[in-house]
Amino acid sequence: MGAMPVHTAKRIKMRFDSRLDKIKIYEAGKPIELVVREYGVSSDKIVKLASNENPYGCSPKAKKAVCDIVSNMAIYPDDSMYRLKQKLAGRFGVDESELIIGSGSDQVIELLMHAKASTGSKILINSVTFAMYEIYAAHVGAEVVRTATLHHDLDQFYDLYKVYNPSIIFICTPNNPTGDAIESQKLLEFLHKIDSETLVVIDGAYMEYAAAKDERYAVDAAQLIAEFDNLIYLGTLSKAYGLGGMRVGYGVAQSEIVTALYKLRAPFNITTLSLEAAIVALEDVEFVDQSIALNAEQMSRYESFADRHNIEYIYSYTNFITLLFQEPLNSSDIALSLLKEGMIVRDLSGYGLNAIRVTIGTSSDNDRFFDLFKRLL
Amino acid sequence: MGAMPVHTAKRIKMRFDSRLDKIKIYEAGKPIELVVREYGVSSDKIVKLASNENPYGCSPKAKKAVCDIVSNMAIYPDDSMYRLKQKLAGRFGVDESELIIGSGSDQVIELLMHAKASTGSKILINSVTFAMYEIYAAHVGAEVVRTATLHHDLDQFYDLYKVYNPSIIFICTPNNPTGDAIESQKLLEFLHKIDSETLVVIDGAYMEYAAAKDERYAVDAAQLIAEFDNLIYLGTLSKAYGLGGMRVGYGVAQSEIVTALYKLRAPFNITTLSLEAAIVALEDVEFVDQSIALNAEQMSRYESFADRHNIEYIYSYTNFITLLFQEPLNSSDIALSLLKEGMIVRDLSGYGLNAIRVTIGTSSDNDRFFDLFKRLL
Repeated sequence: MGAMPVHTAKRIKMRFDSRLDKIKIYEAGKPIELVVREYGVSSDKIVKLASNENPYGCSPKAKKAVCDIVSNMAIYPDDSMYRLKQKLAGRFGVDESELIIGSGSDQVIELLMHAKASTGSKILINSVTFAMYEIYAAHVGAEVVRTATLHHDLDQFYDLYKVYNPSIIFICTPNNPTGDAIESQKLLEFLHKIDSETLVVIDGAYMEYAAAKDERYAVDAAQLIAEFDNLIYLGTLSKAYGLGGMRVGYGVAQSEIVTALYKLRAPFNITTLSLEAAIVALEDVEFVDQSIALNAEQMSRYESFADRHNIEYIYSYTNFITLLFQEPLNSSDIALSLLKEGMIVRDLSGYGLNAIRVTIGTSSDNDRFFDLFKRLL
Repeated sequence: MGAMPVHTAKRIKMRFDSRLDKIKIYEAGKPIELVVREYGVSSDKIVKLASNENPYGCSPKAKKAVCDIVSNMAIYPDDSMYRLKQKLAGRFGVDESELIIGSGSDQVIELLMHAKASTGSKILINSVTFAMYEIYAAHVGAEVVRTATLHHDLDQFYDLYKVYNPSIIFICTPNNPTGDAIESQKLLEFLHKIDSETLVVIDGAYMEYAAAKDERYAVDAAQLIAEFDNLIYLGTLSKAYGLGGMRVGYGVAQSEIVTALYKLRAPFNITTLSLEAAIVALEDVEFVDQSIALNAEQMSRYESFADRHNIEYIYSYTNFITLLFQEPLNSSDIALSLLKEGMIVRDLSGYGLNAIRVTIGTSSDNDRFFDLFKRLL
């Protein structure tokens, strides 16, 4: 045989960075609502208590503001995010240079992972916690080190910190998907023991709920960043503010950290309508307070229900509750049975737990959950 | 002196990945509209012809659809992007597995840079082209190699390809910020000469304008990806579809490439309202066709104006025109003089050109531009 013809070179599969070999793709299939409808459930019967969205929607003022400027969909957003930063700076009592806005706080996690970690870096996280920490760690080839207990045990965090010298420590309080939180005093003691080269991320996505429930669990971002130059606090508009669909989150940190993250930020990372919605939602304190109050009321119904039926649960500082099962009850079977009735909840078997996470819905959503769930016991 | 007390360790500045040292931060200041108002221009006098937005806005049907579902701001978007992918697959005649949606086509560029390039990789681009290629290359520590001529010279591209063996080649047609385009036949000949290990990106952000103007410049994404397994075609809803503020772009490529990019994609990278707007905008072909026709009409006014005043310009296949100046005319001075009158255009001195880029506005926007500009000559 002679030389290979040039065009067969095309047959070689393109190689990508070797980090990608280890990444499992998240295969998003059809929307779950479509799946449920395949079980013969009509769309008005579907209740989704799976994504910790605000069941009361979002501020009516934000909705009006967005429709008022809907023609601006054609216009690029103000990339300085001037007005949004002013609002957030005012809310937290920090400087605008101490803020970075992300497409959800997710994107701030992505940015700090790319800024601080790389192949071989160690990332310290809780045994069960927000899944995106591990996913973004994989994106940069970093290795995840986990504690061994369900709840954040800061002594364990400290021991693992000493052994592994992680680039980043993630503390999620209140924690998702478990709902428990850390007393701010204990958090402070822990932070004092961490060296300034290790970035500590305090993810407060559900902090509004915890702060309203018990002030000992309230984390003050301004106080933390004044004291610690190795810390970033994350918050979101997706939960208490009811803007899950609009992708607005933020980080609060000393300006050196914010500057580093800004170097990797893509311009226009928030839509024009998202900016407007976020600004108005932050002003509508009444809506948020009411959402939190209603959540607390409905949460106590879940606690009573679980007590009455002898179901173990994790005391929650959030807008969801995690129900823990004992054999022969199986969380995957329970989630599937509920799904077939149009009730969508989150099975936590993927986290190694025989548990489901249920978003606290409206009163009628919860009635329906209790009704369906009772039949499975 | 004894041992240093532990807390002084806090004084050490946190180190980030060394790639960041080379990245200049894009310091977004106040919105330019605010700056213009500081010159005493009232807001209704400001005309922005700087960002190649669609001056006719976006589809009225898309606006209505977004307001109809504004309550869904609280709900996470369908992360499978089922309906949007169906629409795009239908439009291009490709499979849904051959599509990836980004927060603007920018984000697809970011993903492919992270998937294919890393420190030391070479990225081949045109001398003057879309600025984000270089910015995202810096994010991963890759080096940019540029051609020497204003227009895409594919022979030069090929010569540099042979010398530098780049990981990625960016072909922007029509090119931004110059407006010229490449005949699709010439592009095909070039593509046949590139090995399958080099990813070729065809950025068609303004392709709808070029395809309508002269079909010889129309690039058929389906045909390209059927033939080339090392190619990704990029498109956007930000230009002809008038959704610049909503951040929706896409890549079309063989599924192996799409799968690799999906591994690095953050979930929920498009907002709930952006998804809806994009789906409806893609259906409203009439709006897009009309925008393109009006653009062509107004473009010819710019060409006549430039000819009449003996100003050199680049023949444009887009919704903007680049005016080239000779000394003593200076593009920065001209842009500033226009700014003080409330007319915002893009000075291209940062690209090494004595030129401004003007977005083709509505008839009255353009009247105002001609009127103000004449006074500067």
